[in-house]
Amino acid sequence: MEFSRRISSLRPSAIREILKAPSDPDTVSLAAGNPSPETFPAAEMALIAADIFQNNAPAALQYGVSEGYQPLRERTRKRLAEKHGLGNETDELIITSGGQQVAELAAKTLLNEGDTVICEDPSFIGALNAFRSYGVKLVGVPCNGSGMDIDQLENALKKHPEAKMIYTIPTFQNPSGEVMPLASRKRLLELAAKHDVTVLEDDPYRELRYSGETVPAIKTLDTEGRVIYAGSFSKIIAPGIRLGFALAPAPLIAKMTVGKQVSDVHSNLFFQILVEQFMARYDLEAHIARCRELYRARLGVMDAALKKHMPGAGWIVPEGGLFLWVKLPGGLDGTEFCRKAKEKKVMAVPGSAFLCDENGVSNAIRLNFSLPSPEQIEIGIARLGSVTLHPLASADTKEM
Amino acid sequence: MEFSRRISSLRPSAIREILKAPSDPDTVSLAAGNPSPETFPAAEMALIAADIFQNNAPAALQYGVSEGYQPLRERTRKRLAEKHGLGNETDELIITSGGQQVAELAAKTLLNEGDTVICEDPSFIGALNAFRSYGVKLVGVPCNGSGMDIDQLENALKKHPEAKMIYTIPTFQNPSGEVMPLASRKRLLELAAKHDVTVLEDDPYRELRYSGETVPAIKTLDTEGRVIYAGSFSKIIAPGIRLGFALAPAPLIAKMTVGKQVSDVHSNLFFQILVEQFMARYDLEAHIARCRELYRARLGVMDAALKKHMPGAGWIVPEGGLFLWVKLPGGLDGTEFCRKAKEKKVMAVPGSAFLCDENGVSNAIRLNFSLPSPEQIEIGIARLGSVTLHPLASADTKEM
Repeated sequence: MEFSRRISSLRPSAIREILKAPSDPDTVSLAAGNPSPETFPAAEMALIAADIFQNNAPAALQYGVSEGYQPLRERTRKRLAEKHGLGNETDELIITSGGQQVAELAAKTLLNEGDTVICEDPSFIGALNAFRSYGVKLVGVPCNGSGMDIDQLENALKKHPEAKMIYTIPTFQNPSGEVMPLASRKRLLELAAKHDVTVLEDDPYRELRYSGETVPAIKTLDTEGRVIYAGSFSKIIAPGIRLGFALAPAPLIAKMTVGKQVSDVHSNLFFQILVEQFMARYDLEAHIARCRELYRARLGVMDAALKKHMPGAGWIVPEGGLFLWVKLPGGLDGTEFCRKAKEKKVMAVPGSAFLCDENGVSNAIRLNFSLPSPEQIEIGIARLGSVTLHPLASADTKEM
Repeated sequence: MEFSRRISSLRPSAIREILKAPSDPDTVSLAAGNPSPETFPAAEMALIAADIFQNNAPAALQYGVSEGYQPLRERTRKRLAEKHGLGNETDELIITSGGQQVAELAAKTLLNEGDTVICEDPSFIGALNAFRSYGVKLVGVPCNGSGMDIDQLENALKKHPEAKMIYTIPTFQNPSGEVMPLASRKRLLELAAKHDVTVLEDDPYRELRYSGETVPAIKTLDTEGRVIYAGSFSKIIAPGIRLGFALAPAPLIAKMTVGKQVSDVHSNLFFQILVEQFMARYDLEAHIARCRELYRARLGVMDAALKKHMPGAGWIVPEGGLFLWVKLPGGLDGTEFCRKAKEKKVMAVPGSAFLCDENGVSNAIRLNFSLPSPEQIEIGIARLGSVTLHPLASADTKEM
C-alpha cells in the first residue's frame, strides 16, 4: 500500500519518542497542552445532559446540519460581538470539531498543493501539520518578543509572492506566549491586504488573560473580509467534547461547510446543545474568571520555582495562555535537555517540536502550567533544575 | 478570496434546491438517510452519561488519543471478530467521527490529486464528495442487481491502470439496496490484487438485514492487507454522536491516525466512553434486533404502498439497509419527478444525486423508510403516486 505524498510528508519525529507516556508513574508532565480538569463544569454539564436525554434526545442524537446547531451558532456570535467586538454582517460562523478543524478546513478550502503559508516560527505544531497534510510549504517568521516580527513578515511576503495565507496566534502565542501589540496587528493586516493574502487568526487562549490589557483581535480590524477567526471551547469548557468555531466571511464559511460535510458531516450534536444550554443557564463569564484564577496562581508557582531552581534560564512571564517558554542557559539543546529530563521523571516539550523546519534545533523548551498541580509544578521544575545544573548527576541525589 | 481547486470542484447542485427544508410543515420526507429516533437507546444512554459525569468526568472531558478510547477500540474489534469474522492480527482499528471520516481519512492517506477511484455508479454521495475534495477522479461501474458489475469492474481496471482504489458498499448498497454475492466479492478482491489497488469496503448497514442470508464482508476474505473496512455506530446506536471506525492493516491505521490528529485530534471522548459502556452493560445484539423489527415493518409498509399507489414503477425489495430504489415508469426523469413531488408535499432524492457524473440523468428515485412513521410512509407514497399518474394535477385533489 503506497501512501499519499501529503501524509508521507508528516514524519514521526524524534520528539514523539520523548513525549511517549513514561514508564514511571511518578513522572511529572509539564509537556501537555491540556486545561485542568478542575475547570470542567462537570456538575452543571451533568444536569444539562440529564435534561437533554429527558426532553430532547430524539433531536440531540439525530443527524444535524454541517454548519452547526443554530442556537449555539447564534449565541456564540452574540458573545463574540458583545464581549470581543468580533464579527459583522458579512461574516458567518461555523461550529467545528475543535479549533484544530478550523486549520484543517481553512487549508482544505483555500490552499492548493505547493501553496505557501507564512507562520510564526516556532508555532503550534497541530496547525503546521494540518497545512503540511495538504502539501503546503511553510515559511517561518520569528517572534521578536511581541509576536511575529512584522518587518520580517514584510520581507517574507516580498520574497514569497506566491504566499496565500498568514497563519498567526497573535494572543499568547503557542509556544512563545507572546502578544502581538495592536500596532503590529494593524500592520499585519495592511501587509496582508497589500499582498492579497488571507489571514488565519488562531485565538484559543484569548479568554485566559492573567495580567495586562486586552488587545483586540486582528479580526476586529478586518474591513475587507480577509481574516478567518478560529476559536475554541476546549480551554473554557472542556476539550474532550471537541467543539470550536470559525468566524469568517459568509462565502468562505459556505465552502468550509461543504468541506466539513465531507469530513465528518457535523460535530457531536449532543454537546453542541449542551454547550449552548450551559451558556444560556449559567454565567460563562464567572466560570472563565474562575479558570483564570486557577491558572494565574499556577503560573505564579511556576515562575517562582523557575527563579529558585533554574535561575540561569531565560523566560518572560506571559500575560495569558497555558505555556511558559524557557530559554535554556549556556545554549543547551532543548531536545537533548528534554531527553535527560525524562530520565529525571519530568517531561517538557523541546522547542524544536514547534519549528517550521522539522530538522531545526532550539535551545528552548515549552512548559505547561495549567494541567499540573502547584505541588507537581514545584517538583517538576526542581527536577528540571537538576538537569540544568548537573546534567550528568543522578535523579535520586539531586531532585527536590 | 480564491478557493482551492478541490473545494471549487464540489459544486452545489440543483438537487440541493429540491432537498431544502420545505416551507409546508405537512410535507412528508422520504429523502433522509436518518435512522429512526425510536431506535436510540436514550434511557440507557442517560444512565451511563450520569455515571460518567459522576465518576469519570475529568478523563471523559479531557483530551484523548487520536486512535480512540482504548476500551472501545478493543470491544469493537472483539465484536467484529466474533460476530462477523472480521480482522486479524495484522489489522488495527481507529475510532472515527462517523463512517464519513473513514472515506475522508482513506483519501487523505492514500490518494494524490489526479488519482482515480473506481466506485459503484450510483453510490453514496458523501463518500464520492470526500474523494472529489481531494481532487480525485471517479470512474463509475454500474450495479447489475447484484451490486457492482464485476465484469465491468474488470474492464474499468484495464482501462484505468492508474486506479488506486475501489470504493464499494457491497451490502445493501446506497442507494440501490443491492447485495454483492460472495462469488463477486471474491472476484473483486482477486481483481484488486491483480491490479494492485486498495479496496475501501463501506459497510454501515450490515447489522440491518431484514431477510435472506448474511454475506461475509469482503474484508473477511482479505489475506494480503488490501481492504479498509469502514463501520459506523450511527445506524445501531445514534448518528448525532458522530462515531464510526475503520479496521485496516496496522501501517495504514498508523497513517490514518496521523491524518486524524491534524483533522480533529480525536472524536468526542465522552460518547466513546458511553458507547463502550453501552456495549458492556446492555445487550447490543438484542437492541439491534429491535431496530431490525422496526425497519422490517416499515419496509413492508412502503412496499405495500408502492404496489398500491405506484404499480407502474419498478423496484426490488432490499434485504436490508434504509432505502428503497424505485425506477419510475415511462422513463420519467427523477429530478423533475422529485421537483413535482415536493409541490405535492412529499420529498424523495432523485437518482441523479448519486451519479459519478454530476450532470448525469436518472429515471430512479431513492426512498427512505427508516425515518418516516408507517402512516407517513403511506401518505408519502400516495402523494408520489399522484405525481406519477397525474403529473399536472393539484396535490389537494389527488393525494391520498
